[in-house]
Amino acid sequence: MIISSKILQDAVDGISNLPGIGKKTALRIALHLLNGNMEIGKNLAVNLTALENIKFCKKCHNISDEDYCDICTSKVRDKNTICVVENIRDIIAIENTQQFNGVYHVLGGLISPLEGVSPDDINIQSLVERIEDNTDLKELIMAISPTIEGETTIFYISNLLPEETKISMISRGVSFGGELEYADELTLGRSILTRIPYGNATAK
Amino acid sequence: MIISSKILQDAVDGISNLPGIGKKTALRIALHLLNGNMEIGKNLAVNLTALENIKFCKKCHNISDEDYCDICTSKVRDKNTICVVENIRDIIAIENTQQFNGVYHVLGGLISPLEGVSPDDINIQSLVERIEDNTDLKELIMAISPTIEGETTIFYISNLLPEETKISMISRGVSFGGELEYADELTLGRSILTRIPYGNATAK
Repeated sequence: MIISSKILQDAVDGISNLPGIGKKTALRIALHLLNGNMEIGKNLAVNLTALENIKFCKKCHNISDEDYCDICTSKVRDKNTICVVENIRDIIAIENTQQFNGVYHVLGGLISPLEGVSPDDINIQSLVERIEDNTDLKELIMAISPTIEGETTIFYISNLLPEETKISMISRGVSFGGELEYADELTLGRSILTRIPYGNATAK
Repeated sequence: MIISSKILQDAVDGISNLPGIGKKTALRIALHLLNGNMEIGKNLAVNLTALENIKFCKKCHNISDEDYCDICTSKVRDKNTICVVENIRDIIAIENTQQFNGVYHVLGGLISPLEGVSPDDINIQSLVERIEDNTDLKELIMAISPTIEGETTIFYISNLLPEETKISMISRGVSFGGELEYADELTLGRSILTRIPYGNATAK
């Protein structure tokens, strides 16, 4: 694409580096900004720069502006019900359902031998420590996408935990091979409410 | 959407202010940046801030890093063939064809009484002055979309120009590689009426 301005060319390149945005869309966005919407671009530049200051909660690995996230430091959340999720998007999706009042643990990925993701690459060790430290733990909810990698990860984690740990999985309202974040709120909320003990699901 | 970090929330809001990007896509982009791609975000912030410095060519209203754009200052371009376009995207599209070696004039819109765009709102006056100043003008090419607004704008401009000005329009017809049966009736009908002798099409 031949663009007569280096500044615009750089902006188009920068925008099209974002995932899912091609050159033509990037050009359209850049020209929209130039066309009397410069404030949007300037504000976005400030917001993007501020992203550097984001921290990850030292307990659950959720994103946070402080050392510990709002959910872990909340006084009304049930610290003895831990919901294990793959990533931060899943926390946001579950929070939006307003059906869960416990705390989270973000794995940051799923075990995938094909993609070279081993158990050591994701936050499993810190989860095991959290559970060992918490003698009052009531329940561990696996809110993991129902994929091969998800099943493998759940199986691996369950084998590391003390036998008396109550492990449950979100019910299969979520379609197979689907991504949690795209499930509608009703389905996702129901699937948390109707979670079933681990073991029952595979026996079905 | 409930996000536990104000910094992330701001970034998502900023990204979703861009045209055609919703909240979910914005969140995906922001988390992609957080997930080890912070450089992309930082570079984009620099690029977006630099957009402020973009100028518009004082002659043709194309975007430019200087007072006059590369095309207007080029020594190899034919200054006596002016191609009139609606916006900067059209220049980029035409430049990509590498079939035009003249200069441009960007109107910045089309006359549209319905949308309240009058001839004074677009760069018509400067085009008329350019043509009056250029006694060697060979041709004025109207590369304007074949819409009601486009036709109106072409008609309005042609009435302002000296009678001897040679005005041409980009040809209209069925697109290369297109199936005749899927062309709309107006286009197909026009392309039959404005048929050209065999041989002329490929000879340019």
